[in-house]
Formats: sequence, structure tokens, C-alpha cells
Amino acid sequence: MPGRIQGKQVFISRAHEFMGPAIRELFAEEGGVIKADERDLTPEHAAAEAIREAGEVDILIVNLIAPDPRIILEPDTTEDLWQVMFDTMVHPMYRLCHAVLPQMRSRGSGKIVVMGSANAIRGTNNRSAYSAARGAQVSYVRSLGIELAPLNVHVNLMAQFLVENPTSVPQGKLADLTQRLPEIPLGRMAKGRESALLALYLASNESDFLVGQILPFAGGWTA
Amino acid sequence: MPGRIQGKQVFISRAHEFMGPAIRELFAEEGGVIKADERDLTPEHAAAEAIREAGEVDILIVNLIAPDPRIILEPDTTEDLWQVMFDTMVHPMYRLCHAVLPQMRSRGSGKIVVMGSANAIRGTNNRSAYSAARGAQVSYVRSLGIELAPLNVHVNLMAQFLVENPTSVPQGKLADLTQRLPEIPLGRMAKGRESALLALYLASNESDFLVGQILPFAGGWTA
Amino acid sequence: MPGRIQGKQVFISRAHEFMGPAIRELFAEEGGVIKADERDLTPEHAAAEAIREAGEVDILIVNLIAPDPRIILEPDTTEDLWQVMFDTMVHPMYRLCHAVLPQMRSRGSGKIVVMGSANAIRGTNNRSAYSAARGAQVSYVRSLGIELAPLNVHVNLMAQFLVENPTSVPQGKLADLTQRLPEIPLGRMAKGRESALLALYLASNESDFLVGQILPFAGGWTA
Amino acid sequence: MPGRIQGKQVFISRAHEFMGPAIRELFAEEGGVIKADERDLTPEHAAAEAIREAGEVDILIVNLIAPDPRIILEPDTTEDLWQVMFDTMVHPMYRLCHAVLPQMRSRGSGKIVVMGSANAIRGTNNRSAYSAARGAQVSYVRSLGIELAPLNVHVNLMAQFLVENPTSVPQGKLADLTQRLPEIPLGRMAKGRESALLALYLASNESDFLVGQILPFAGGWTA
Repeated sequence: MPGRIQGKQVFISRAHEFMGPAIRELFAEEGGVIKADERDLTPEHAAAEAIREAGEVDILIVNLIAPDPRIILEPDTTEDLWQVMFDTMVHPMYRLCHAVLPQMRSRGSGKIVVMGSANAIRGTNNRSAYSAARGAQVSYVRSLGIELAPLNVHVNLMAQFLVENPTSVPQGKLADLTQRLPEIPLGRMAKGRESALLALYLASNESDFLVGQILPFAGGWTA
Repeated sequence: MPGRIQGKQVFISRAHEFMGPAIRELFAEEGGVIKADERDLTPEHAAAEAIREAGEVDILIVNLIAPDPRIILEPDTTEDLWQVMFDTMVHPMYRLCHAVLPQMRSRGSGKIVVMGSANAIRGTNNRSAYSAARGAQVSYVRSLGIELAPLNVHVNLMAQFLVENPTSVPQGKLADLTQRLPEIPLGRMAKGRESALLALYLASNESDFLVGQILPFAGGWTA
Repeated sequence: MPGRIQGKQVFISRAHEFMGPAIRELFAEEGGVIKADERDLTPEHAAAEAIREAGEVDILIVNLIAPDPRIILEPDTTEDLWQVMFDTMVHPMYRLCHAVLPQMRSRGSGKIVVMGSANAIRGTNNRSAYSAARGAQVSYVRSLGIELAPLNVHVNLMAQFLVENPTSVPQGKLADLTQRLPEIPLGRMAKGRESALLALYLASNESDFLVGQILPFAGGWTA
Repeated sequence: MPGRIQGKQVFISRAHEFMGPAIRELFAEEGGVIKADERDLTPEHAAAEAIREAGEVDILIVNLIAPDPRIILEPDTTEDLWQVMFDTMVHPMYRLCHAVLPQMRSRGSGKIVVMGSANAIRGTNNRSAYSAARGAQVSYVRSLGIELAPLNVHVNLMAQFLVENPTSVPQGKLADLTQRLPEIPLGRMAKGRESALLALYLASNESDFLVGQILPFAGGWTA
């Protein structure tokens, strides 16, 4: 029985971190041909090179996360810490999309899923720089989704909160998050696979009626 | 191979109208045991009776729509037209949930999906009464979702716009909707099956990290 | 020096409770001619009678709140408790607007401010019935605001949270709210006058570019 | 009679463009001591220098807009056009806030109003880069507003749409905007002074209960 994205070429950026491993595993099970890219995307031309090397891309997973620290009191924010948020999460997002769109336009189809954060849509203490960058992702997807809708290219974003992943919420590091769990109605973190299942929906043709949409995936933390 | 809701008992209210037929078909294909109920739910005790007759319900699909006219200029709104919105879409929603929750609490699991409207989250001309009732659904789900989260009962809502269905958007009645299609970035109506696929995600255990969530399903019409 | 609503005829429903007293005081200071109405608005024809008796109304303040209890666990919700939410906050809102609109249309101007709740836009534990009714207000205002915009009649809503008032948050009853204050970034309740100042903005011609808008007034509790 | 911000020191960035002139005029009428700054804020240290030269700042108006073109089809977006959005609207916002906050913290009071765009909260065709930068502003304000709330420093944002200003919507250039006016329920552009009146509310102590709030000012275009 064919998988839900059988035979689709899937490009995953920074496939070794954040939601990369969980998406890679599930999407392969569902028949996707995985192009897992691990390169540093902060250099200006890295994204374009990655897409060029990848060849055909039916599904682009924009999987980007800033390095630590992401939790910074405003007085401790520096120009460097500010810029790194945009250099790692915002500018590579634009460059990946810009690089992949010509082929999606010419084929008349494509799926882009941005793995974003619920910190963009609900204010969070001591994360002003991180939130700002995640907010750029949200508003970019809303407008790009509308622009690309007539081309049958679908761009959407997941606004995550407290999902296990090797980078920002390593499995078992519950202790560090004890303070945050009471904030979340479900009282637990999500497994990476649960997040990947929503990404799968957005990457498959099941979601062909969704564009420019911001889907919270946050245990009830945000509506 | 088992379906995505294999063996689950699915209660669908007003199964012959609105999203009922599309959900019924897909959910049966995915292994659900369908309890399709067609009764009039406006009498006060109808919902409780329907749930009692249904027996075990693992998945409750709150599928409710007001009869025509739903598009009403404010000066033409009457007390009767106003009340019918709440009598058909709001009060039965509460009663269905209230009736099914004791069994879901005692089993420690359950899924409720409310088939709502994007008119609740984006203002729409000449639909003030309809929007008001759809808005009651949205805010009910947000709060109920949070209250039930610790019980492992998950309540979420789909905020639809321009989805083909036998009641409000009959297949082929494109002519009547010509004025609205340009508003929608994707430039088309959704098929009933596309909507049912998102309902399936919300009804299955794939979405166990979502509660109190309002998921737009609207072709980019609303974010 | 003239006040900000000098000479305007202001109708305030249920003027003795909820935000009525604070609005009445400030609006009088700012030159408004106050028509304070205290009648019970649950009977079907009460709102129409109140508006007829009031005569000219330039500014309608829809000031409505359900009686206690408003915090109800779902299992304790009854048909009566559910209906009272709609009977006190939703149906009278529609009837007040419906009754006042003919005169506003014919004059080609008017302001309607609905004093709503942030519980409508952020899910809240144990308030599913209250939230549902407040949500009906929100979506009604969004759509009605759009419909009436071309007539130069402006309808907007304030989504309040933790504002001192004689009905739901009596002054000095801080003890009862101790549990909620940590949720609110500003760490305090608002004074009634602070809320009235935003209502004043919405009631005056300063806000002539706002229609169908939901303005949170919530100490940072919701964005 | 004292004005609504009598004696307050008001810093307005880029005071000659965008909403600067309208705010400057109204805020002076209301008793503010205006520090109108016109310097280019794209150099890294320009914002800090501007604040240092300004001395005491009670009210910071973050008034920033990208140069033309702001309407760009995605295929025409270049690295330079992308970066200019962030260089002109996002990074100077952070630097202005970061520079002014030490004095506001030490005084235990302060108001920051970011003049943003409704394009951040509703998707818009052919503005993906512009929207992204405006979205960074929105999410920054949400989180910073929460962080600074306990210090009695209030940060909020106005999400504007179609407001007359000398930069993006010059008075009388209605012809160019003919296509957009039907989108806006009020069917007209706002005057600069109308926008300044809401900014005045946010800059004055009348809004002391608002932090991290995004206030649409958009003629009903977005809720």
C-alpha cells in the first residue's frame, strides 16, 4: 500500500536538528524520497546551493532553529544575539523558498511547510528576539501563501510549543521545563512524531485547500 | 491494514446534511464504526436521547448547520431568524457534548470535532446572526478544550469556508457563489472529502497534542 | 472646553452593573447626555421598549453580564445555566442593536460599543458556557461592523479581563482573584475608569476608522 | 487645560516620514515635548546615538518604514530587497527599544508605541518580504510587552492599513489605491490624524492596562 506522500521528493533543511529527525523518519515510512540536508544555511548562497544540488523538490520542509541561548532577558540581548535569530531562522527561510519556487512554478505544484513556533503568536517572557524572528516566519507564510495559491503551490506553517526534539527540547530534559508544563493544558510535551504527523498532513495532497495558514501545535497553550 | 480510526465508535449528528455524508464515507473507509444520526436536535432532550441510544461513542462529530436563509441583512433579521441560529447550531452542540462527556470521562479518552465556520473568525457581510452562532461554537471549544485536556478528552473545531456539501454549498451551485470565489486565494471551493480528511486527523490519535484549537479550513480566506 | 463626546446621546444598558457606573461617570464628564437604563433585558421586547423610550441615541453601550455563577465546571452546567448566558448577554445584544439601528441608519451616523470579555478570545478553564456567549458577541460584532461600515455606523467590542466593576470583580475582592493575578503580565486588575477610557475612544469620533474590531483590554493576558 | 501627555518627552524616529508628521503635530498639541529625529537608522549604532542625544525619553514612537518598492512579487525579491526590509524596520526597532529601556527601567515608567502594519496579521498579495518584517515587529512587541510589564513600561503596536502619510500613502494618491479601497469595509483611507489619535491613547497613561497588544487600525480590513 502506497504511503501518503509516495514517491515525493522531500527536502529537509538542517535535517539533523530540531524537527528534522522525526520528519525524516515518518516521511520515509510514508513513501517520501528524503533529501536530508545538514549544511549551515547562514552563508548567503548556501540555501540556493542546497536546492540546486537537491534537484527536484516536491516538498520543502523549512526546518530551522536558532542555537542557544534562545531565552534571553532583554537587557542581555546584544546585536549579535539579535542578528543570529534572523541569520538562522528568517533569512534562510526566504532563501530556501526563493530557490525552490522556480521549479515548483514550472511544474505547477509544490508544498512548503515551515516548522515555526507558537512563541510567534502568543507573547512569551524573555524571548523577545526569538519571538521576533519566529513572527517574521508567520507573516511571511501568510502573505506568500496567498501569492502562490493561484500557482497550486501551498505554503503553510506549524506554530509549535514544547515538542520533543534533539535541539531545543531534548527527550528526558523534563526537569528544565518543569516550570512551563503547568502553562500547557495537556500537561505534557509532544513527541516529535506527533508533530511530524501534522507536517505530513500539510506536506500531502490531503491539505490542498490550505494556504498561508498558521496551525498551532501547542497542547492548548495557544488558540 | 487497519484504518486510521480502526474500530472507533463514531457518532455523527445530522449525518444527512452539511459535512455528514463526506465524513461518514471517509470515516467508514478508515475503519470507524459509524453511528449516523439524522434526528432533529432542536428539542431540548433530543441530543441526550441520541447519545443514549448510540451507546459507546469514542468520536463525536458535532455536525450542525442552520437552515436557510443564513445570509440575512441586519434589517431583515427577526427574533425568529436569530433564535433559529442558536437553536440549530449552538444549543445542540452544548447538549451533545454534555451528554457524551460522562462516558468519555469514565473511559479517560474521547475526541470531539465541531464542524464550524470561518465566518466566526473573519467578519462577513450580511451574516451577523449566523456569525454570532458560529462564534459561540469557537469560544466554547477553546474553553471546553482546556477544561477537558487533563481528562484526555480532546475537543477541537474546524473553521470552514466554501466547502462543498449538500446543505450550504451544493455541488455544482458554483453560479451562486461566483461573487465569493475571488475572495478566496485558492479560487475554488473545497471538496467535502478534503474537509473530512482534516476532520479525520482531528478524530484520530494523530492529533493527541491538540485541544481547544480552531483550525481554519478556508482556502487562504482567513489566517 | 467641550468634552470628547460633547452633546452626544448615550444609552447605557444595565447601567447599574458591570461597566455601567464607570462609563456613566466618565462619559458625563466628557459632555455626553446619559440615558442610563437599568431594566431587565431578558424579556423579548424589553430592549426595543428601552430604545423607544430613550429616543435619540448617538452612542449605544451594550453593557451586559450574566448573573453568578459564571465559573462552572462543565459537568455542573445545566440547560438553565447555559440558557441564562445567552438570555442575558447574547440575545439582548442583538435586540438592542436591532432596535437602535433604524435611527442610526436614517441619521447616517452612530457608535455601538459592546463591553465583552477576553474569555471569548482565549480559552479559560471552567467557563465554557460563559465563553460561548461572549464568543457570540465577538463574531457578531465582526460581521455587523462590516455590514454597517458603509452607513457610517461603527460597531466595535472591548474584550476585557480582570477589570474592577460592581458585578463580576468588586473592588477590594482581590482575595478571590489571587489565583488569577499571576496569569496577567501586569499583575493587577484594571480600574473601571481605565476601561471606560477605551470605551470613550470607541464611542467618540476619534475612532471613526475602526469597525468590527475586537480590542483586548486585558493587562497583557491575551494578544 | 493640560494636554493628555502634558510635559512628556516624546522621541519620534524618522519624524519626517510615515506617521511622524501627524504624530508630531498632535502630540505637541497635547502638551508633549517633541524630540523629532530624522537620522538614518540603518547604521548599527545610529539608534543608540539618537537616544543618547535625546536625553530623557518618556514616550518612544518607533516610526519606521521601508523605502519603495514595498510591493514586490516573490520572483522579483532579491537578497538586497529582503534585507532592506529588516534593516529599515526590524533591527532599528530593536536598537531603539534596547537603547531607551535602561532609562525607562530606572525611572520605573515608560511608553513605547510601534507604528506597524496590518499586513503582519492578514496575508497580503505580493508583500511577502514587507509582511515578514512587519511580522517580526508584531511578535517582538507581544513578548517584550510581557517582559516589561512588571517594570511599568508599556509596549504596544498599531497594525495600520491604508492610512494617509507622506511616505507610503501620500494624500491625494487615491488613484493608485483604487484597487484596494473595495477591500476595506469603510471604503476610505484614514487621515494621519486619526492614526495619531490612537497612538496618543497608547502613549498616554489612559492605556496603562495595555501591554504587548496589537491594535488593528484598518477600517475593518482585519479583525
